[in-house]
Amino acid sequence: MKKLALLLTWCVVAGAQTAPRAAVRAIIQELVLANRILANEGVVDAYGHVSARDDRNPNHYFLARHVAAGLVTAADIIEYDLDTNPVGGARTDGYSERFIHGEIYKARPDVTAIVHFHAPEVIPFGVSNIPLRPVFHMAAFLGEGVPVFEIRNSGGVTDMLIRTPALGHALAETLGDKPAALMRGHGAVVTAAGLHVVVGRAYYMKVNAKLQQDAMLLSGGKVTYLDP
Amino acid sequence: MKKLALLLTWCVVAGAQTAPRAAVRAIIQELVLANRILANEGVVDAYGHVSARDDRNPNHYFLARHVAAGLVTAADIIEYDLDTNPVGGARTDGYSERFIHGEIYKARPDVTAIVHFHAPEVIPFGVSNIPLRPVFHMAAFLGEGVPVFEIRNSGGVTDMLIRTPALGHALAETLGDKPAALMRGHGAVVTAAGLHVVVGRAYYMKVNAKLQQDAMLLSGGKVTYLDP
Amino acid sequence: MKKLALLLTWCVVAGAQTAPRAAVRAIIQELVLANRILANEGVVDAYGHVSARDDRNPNHYFLARHVAAGLVTAADIIEYDLDTNPVGGARTDGYSERFIHGEIYKARPDVTAIVHFHAPEVIPFGVSNIPLRPVFHMAAFLGEGVPVFEIRNSGGVTDMLIRTPALGHALAETLGDKPAALMRGHGAVVTAAGLHVVVGRAYYMKVNAKLQQDAMLLSGGKVTYLDP
Amino acid sequence: MKKLALLLTWCVVAGAQTAPRAAVRAIIQELVLANRILANEGVVDAYGHVSARDDRNPNHYFLARHVAAGLVTAADIIEYDLDTNPVGGARTDGYSERFIHGEIYKARPDVTAIVHFHAPEVIPFGVSNIPLRPVFHMAAFLGEGVPVFEIRNSGGVTDMLIRTPALGHALAETLGDKPAALMRGHGAVVTAAGLHVVVGRAYYMKVNAKLQQDAMLLSGGKVTYLDP
Repeated sequence: MKKLALLLTWCVVAGAQTAPRAAVRAIIQELVLANRILANEGVVDAYGHVSARDDRNPNHYFLARHVAAGLVTAADIIEYDLDTNPVGGARTDGYSERFIHGEIYKARPDVTAIVHFHAPEVIPFGVSNIPLRPVFHMAAFLGEGVPVFEIRNSGGVTDMLIRTPALGHALAETLGDKPAALMRGHGAVVTAAGLHVVVGRAYYMKVNAKLQQDAMLLSGGKVTYLDP
Repeated sequence: MKKLALLLTWCVVAGAQTAPRAAVRAIIQELVLANRILANEGVVDAYGHVSARDDRNPNHYFLARHVAAGLVTAADIIEYDLDTNPVGGARTDGYSERFIHGEIYKARPDVTAIVHFHAPEVIPFGVSNIPLRPVFHMAAFLGEGVPVFEIRNSGGVTDMLIRTPALGHALAETLGDKPAALMRGHGAVVTAAGLHVVVGRAYYMKVNAKLQQDAMLLSGGKVTYLDP
Repeated sequence: MKKLALLLTWCVVAGAQTAPRAAVRAIIQELVLANRILANEGVVDAYGHVSARDDRNPNHYFLARHVAAGLVTAADIIEYDLDTNPVGGARTDGYSERFIHGEIYKARPDVTAIVHFHAPEVIPFGVSNIPLRPVFHMAAFLGEGVPVFEIRNSGGVTDMLIRTPALGHALAETLGDKPAALMRGHGAVVTAAGLHVVVGRAYYMKVNAKLQQDAMLLSGGKVTYLDP
Repeated sequence: MKKLALLLTWCVVAGAQTAPRAAVRAIIQELVLANRILANEGVVDAYGHVSARDDRNPNHYFLARHVAAGLVTAADIIEYDLDTNPVGGARTDGYSERFIHGEIYKARPDVTAIVHFHAPEVIPFGVSNIPLRPVFHMAAFLGEGVPVFEIRNSGGVTDMLIRTPALGHALAETLGDKPAALMRGHGAVVTAAGLHVVVGRAYYMKVNAKLQQDAMLLSGGKVTYLDP
């Protein structure tokens, strides 16, 4: 945790131009930073999002309105309940895939932070029969196995997006008790018990995907993975 | 459309230094932004261009003079008719490949925006017998098929450039009713009914090309593509 | 050496924002610059570190406290003895893997600078049976052979980190008299008789790893390596 | 030529911080810009250089002193004769490989600009038996064939550098009448009749190398190259 805090520190110094007001809660400020870091490191682009469970009320969580992560400010953060109803009243500017977050928080009390992303490095594993496995220590958490969510099984032919609570629930079921899952033809979701940790996991999941592909090509598939 | 608008917003904030005057029409301002975004995202480099059909007169379209996309300002935009004659009188500073745009607008009344680009990721698909196919949801539009334009068939041995209306017409014929086409040994053209959409399509066509190559290498070619 | 000094000069001009005070020793200032260069060139990210042996006392060495290399300032540098005890008294903010440095300095009087890094390019060689070899002249130092450290042999199942003097000693034994070693599932360590040289070696070890992989894929493995 | 001028314009606007004084000749100013562009586009890093034949005296040429290309200013430019003697008197701060330039200018009266670079993309072709060939129109000049210089043939076992007029001459002989040559285990040299053109050629030689590798891997080697 201490090391991952450095990543956050780095972002602040390196110039993420957030202007949190004194009254903004620490968790909101950190969520804004998490958005900026993920954008800065190429984990998310104009799409992809990160949420944090409310540390004072585990039945609520925080997620930005539909805006690119690299632009998120404290004013963009929406508070949701676990059915993904905005606590402050109905609004129309949420991410269409916000149900990913609510349904996972509902199913997984141990999870306090979630990233959904489309980094190009992870997509090939979701569309092939090659499991994503940990190649280096920074991605050791992948050693528990990375299930692949097939939206055809629960949603038939769709636009691939998790647009309903039911699809979010199906994704949470595929995730099970693992830290991360791939979504076929779409991207990935990664969870942790901590916002700092989930940012690091998303970043190193991306890096590990590239490493694994490189190692497999280099060696004809004879790769030594991490022990569980 | 709403999501793609975010991409534009992002570009403005992230620092595209355009200085549109009050009198400049919105479509021109957006075309300038589209140029900057495409350069910023590596879809175009010193070469490559984007055009928009005039939203008040479908027989005209807008395209920059021959300048790198990352430098385009409102003052660089030229208005053309569908035969690619400059509306304001003859000039010699148009892109040599401007006929790509006019001939596609003429053949495709549904198209209101076009990008021509050479991003390295797409070139390998134009020079091999591997069809470009959608690997993830952001590139679903490729599911209609991506024809490959072979300039030798209509132009013989050339410098590969679409320097005449006839070559532009031949390219439009290869494109047919599809949203995108590859140009063998040269690049690609992508179309949409909207400037915001075409910018996103060009970007994700580039990303998908990389993804497809990675997924094919990883899996020995056993890739699950999107359903049509 | 002169050429590598240019690399340092470049970093200063390109904007590494260090503010060394007049009283800071030259070796500390150069160590700060080395940290910034390595971060700037992608050799290290939030993790990875570089040390320098004290040029006035070969039984001491300098290494930053646990902070991302891109953020290191002179105030972050800790002086250690070769058993990796902080000279200024006990503290808890050292890198957990600081023993890499002390144990190698102890075993290798010829070494005056060390980099430990996780650049993605080198990892695939540590987890496959493909030796890392010099493909181009900038990485000629790899021609002496690059041993691979297997932590299971000395530490059993661990979190892969060099958290003890004993593990540091085992790594130094694997390194032997070579300039560089890979660490399976983790990263690499590279040494030199000079801080300027070790920065260049870390950078070109990363570049060479990418080159070798590309050359092997391109040619089906028939690569002409440098002569020893 | 006009299009390549745009590339230069772009560099100026995008922020190359050159401060040419009024008295500096245009060719020197352009050579400074060429250095900055090549560094900015990743064609050269801390190493690699570009020269220009004197447009007033074809028996002289201009090349920076040994400084990273991204830092070159007008004050760094040295004037050499074709035997690579500094015109202003002996000095010790030239690039060690300056003989590449003098010997090629001597052998090739048609050449007025030369780039020597180590971009990682081109190295794999120099160390394998795969010829570099033009995949897209921007690299059509490669269609004349790209010979590979083997320094062992003329220099035996060396540090790979072109440190003498004799090695420079041997390289010029391998180059023959072609625009570009690879140097095994080292890099490449590319020439043109114009500084603007040679900058574009170096950049697109790098891009084409990546494209060709990608296309070969994608298609199992069945690539359609440009016609000569």
